This record gives sequence, C-alpha cells and structure tokens, in this order.
Amino acid sequence: MAEPLPQTLSLSETVAFLDSAFPQMAMGECTFDLVAVAAGFARMRMHHDVRHLRPGGTVSGPSMMALADYALYAAILASLGPVALAVTTSLNFNFLRRPGPTGLIAEARLLKLGRRLAVGEVAITAPDSDDLVCHATGTYSIPPEH
Amino acid sequence: MAEPLPQTLSLSETVAFLDSAFPQMAMGECTFDLVAVAAGFARMRMHHDVRHLRPGGTVSGPSMMALADYALYAAILASLGPVALAVTTSLNFNFLRRPGPTGLIAEARLLKLGRRLAVGEVAITAPDSDDLVCHATGTYSIPPEH
Amino acid sequence: MAEPLPQTLSLSETVAFLDSAFPQMAMGECTFDLVAVAAGFARMRMHHDVRHLRPGGTVSGPSMMALADYALYAAILASLGPVALAVTTSLNFNFLRRPGPTGLIAEARLLKLGRRLAVGEVAITAPDSDDLVCHATGTYSIPPEH
Amino acid sequence: MAEPLPQTLSLSETVAFLDSAFPQMAMGECTFDLVAVAAGFARMRMHHDVRHLRPGGTVSGPSMMALADYALYAAILASLGPVALAVTTSLNFNFLRRPGPTGLIAEARLLKLGRRLAVGEVAITAPDSDDLVCHATGTYSIPPEH
Repeated sequence: MAEPLPQTLSLSETVAFLDSAFPQMAMGECTFDLVAVAAGFARMRMHHDVRHLRPGGTVSGPSMMALADYALYAAILASLGPVALAVTTSLNFNFLRRPGPTGLIAEARLLKLGRRLAVGEVAITAPDSDDLVCHATGTYSIPPEH
Repeated sequence: MAEPLPQTLSLSETVAFLDSAFPQMAMGECTFDLVAVAAGFARMRMHHDVRHLRPGGTVSGPSMMALADYALYAAILASLGPVALAVTTSLNFNFLRRPGPTGLIAEARLLKLGRRLAVGEVAITAPDSDDLVCHATGTYSIPPEH
Repeated sequence: MAEPLPQTLSLSETVAFLDSAFPQMAMGECTFDLVAVAAGFARMRMHHDVRHLRPGGTVSGPSMMALADYALYAAILASLGPVALAVTTSLNFNFLRRPGPTGLIAEARLLKLGRRLAVGEVAITAPDSDDLVCHATGTYSIPPEH
Repeated sequence: MAEPLPQTLSLSETVAFLDSAFPQMAMGECTFDLVAVAAGFARMRMHHDVRHLRPGGTVSGPSMMALADYALYAAILASLGPVALAVTTSLNFNFLRRPGPTGLIAEARLLKLGRRLAVGEVAITAPDSDDLVCHATGTYSIPPEH
C-alpha cells in the first residue's frame, strides 16, 4: 500500500486492549499471542491444543478463521487506536494446504484504511515453512464516531 | 437446486459420525447440536456461553464461522455418507447484524454437489427472529476415492 | 429478510436511471434488461452474443459477474432511490455449472439494507432450468449524504 | 509461495493461446494485453475506453473483474501449459479505491497450484500509483485429464 498508514498503539498497548476486550482469546486451551504490530500490520501466533485438531491431526478451519480475524483486528487496532471498535463485515478464506499439528503464524496487512471501511489480507503459515496454509481477506466497518 | 440430491445418512447417523470425527464440537462450553438433516440440507444449533461473547455481549464472529462450517459439513455428510471426508477449500462470510447473547441457528443448503466439489450456503439467525445475522457460502473438495 | 424493505422506484424509473447512469449496459452486443423490481429485489436478463462466449460455447465468467453486479445495483436502487449512488465494495462468486450458449437470468435479493452498507445475494440460472449457474454475494457502500 | 512452480509456456506462447481461446479479449474497444508471465505469475494491462466508464468517469467493476479473471487464467496457463483448460470455480473481489479514467495493471500470483485446484491472488493498480484499486482471489478447477 503506497500511502503511509499510521501506527497509533504499541505492541504492549494493543495486547492490553485485546486482553481486556476479548478475554476469551486467553481462555481455555485456545491461545492467540500477538507478537508484533506496525503501521497496518500485525503478526499473531496460535498455539495448538487438542481442541483444534481435526481428523488426521490438523488444525481446524474454525481455529484458523479465528486467528485470521483476530490478527486483522489487531492490525486495525494498532493503526486506529482503541477508540475504534471496528466490526467485521465480511471475511473470505481460501484453505490451501493441510497444516500439521503445530502452531500457526498469521501475518495481517491492511490493504486499505478508509474512514468507513478497513480491508486487509492475512497469510497463515506453519512456523517451519513459507507455504501458505490459509489466505484470508476481511472487511471491517469503522464506527462513524471515530 | 433442481436436480434431486441424495440423502445417505439419517440424522442419528450423521450425529454419530460428527461426534466421533469432531470430538471438540462437544467439548468445553462450546456446543453445536445438529437438529435436522435432509438431502442437501442441515440445521444446526449453537448454544452460547461466555466463551463466545464479544464486547457488548454478542456472539463472536469465529463462533459463527465454526457453526457455518460444521453445518455445511453436516449437509454434505448427510448427502454423501461418511466415506467422504470432504475438505473445506473456501468460505465466505457476510456479517449482517449483531446477534444478542443468545444461541444461534444455522440452516445449510447445498447449491451444488458435484463429483469433485460441493458448494453450499448457510443462513444464520437468532431463535426469535428471521433476520439474518450472518450469511456464508462454502466450497468443499470431495476426495477422488469417493 | 424479516424487516420490511422499502420500494422507492418503479421498474420504469429504475430502468430510466440505469440507462442514463450506465449507457454501456445498452451498448454494443452486450445487453442487460431489467425485467422486474420489488422491495429489495431485482430480476435482470442478459442476452448473449458471441462476445460472451468462452471456448466450448458457454457464457463467460466476466459477463455473469457484470450481470450479478448490475442486478444487485438495481435492487438497491429500487429500494433506496436514485439519490443513492451506491459503490460496490466487495463481490464473491461461486460458478456452479457451465451455462449453455443461452441468455441468463439473475435474481438479486437484499440480505441487509443498512444506513452504510447494503448486502445482497444473486442467483443466476438459464431460462430453461432451475439449476444455479452462478451464485454471488455483494456488499455496497451507501454514501453518507443519503 | 515456497515450493518452486513450473513455467511451461513463454509469454508469446501464452498470448497466442489466449488469443485463440478468447477472441473476445481483443474484440471491440475492450482490450487486455498480457505483458509478462513467469512461474505462477502474470502481469496484464487493460486499456480503457468509454465502455468501461462508470458515472464519475471510473473504470467499471465488471471490467476489473474481467481483468482479474484473465490475469489469473494467464498465470495458470503459463505454469500448466495449454492442455489445462482450467475452469473458474470462485472469485472474490474487494474494491478498494475508485480508479481514474486510466488503464489498469493486474499482477496475478498463484498461492497454490495443486493437482485439482489452483488458487491465486490479483492486485490491480493504476499505472501511476502503487495504491491498490482492487484485490481479488480466485480458485480454478484443473481438469482430471491433466
């Protein structure tokens, strides 16, 4: 994306906001760790447990979808700040390869950060490979009061 | 869909297969109940708990995405039988209204059941309303050995 | 959709607006005829010519995508009136069956008509069959001044 | 994408195949020029004319959708060779910025080239800017005889 995007929150500020707003992200065996943010960017790690395992021992689609949604949300949050409680309006997923029973890494990049809509894409990979496991795009509505 | 679709599994057979193949669906506070199947059709209910609640008390997007994926999977399973371990290749979601802190109902209908691909759509509503909360479409790859 | 949608424009008013706003719809061999509108609904017919034919003699994907976009746009227009110059923000297509070298019919239904976003789905069929050729969903941004 | 993709056709071979298979691409005022191919990659240019212009003078969504579909098709063709008459099974578009009345450039990259499915993404920009005008993802079915 050519025009410069702002970065409003630091990594620790974004993590603190996510923790308070989405307590379920750290609940139970299902854990998502935000490991980096930058202007229009977030990297999130998902740690696996039996809850995510499908027949054949791969991470489930719904777990990857949660990871993608959270990572995009973090990228928007880091850019816009906590005042903006963005709402997911659409998400599109292509599942490309079966992941093994490992954790996964999502890298979310904003393609557009408009006044009313933010659009981004997410690449999900396994820690030991550059092959895409899942690719997602998402659109988020930015509240008018922002 | 004009051409007749088969129904291979009964409701109890589909539930039994889902329970064995996806034990995580009945695990913890997150529960999905298949309540009806027909040729190319499945109705699934999601019971809510705090784990699904977003800020403001609505069911989370990832919970709805899991519900849609499971409901479509059940519709394919009921039509093709348990031999077909279909793999989700793509999912597209439009989130239309914020649901309240209630359970949700998904109705999945197959739009196409081909030799290699099954495509379906899902309408998610709250129990007390016909308003769509979420609309999804999904594509599943049918293994060649089928 | 449960809540009642408005119908603001008649069929002839919608056609007149489309003709003035999109002269290319009636240009050349590529023709799209709006044949019915209702609250949150539009039916549009596409007449084929060689320009739409792919190898093997089927209507091209891009022609169907244009048909779906125009039909959804007409459904929004009929509901909101001509003041709303809605902008397409996303479109998702599943191509289900190869159409023959015939015209096609699109039926567009709005799933949501909010203040800022309209979301709808489109079913495209051949005139002589109920089988879906293409299913689409689209999101349109409604300008703030509306 | 980590694993190496093949390149089977040269640029001139890919252009020759597209010209014979899709004569409508060079017909009338609507022109698409393939300007580069590599393994899993294609760059295509769309030249504008009045037919593509929407109210306000921007290139229409359907023209951009055709451009994206053709560019992805060219990327698959260059990788698989002309024997593979891939069929578009799904396309997803996010329209990010209104383009001016200029030509557009599409860069298509394959995310996966499997035995049965190819998945790719397309970035569409104006010639004078790196800002994304449209982002698309698409899935293509590879015929079994391949």
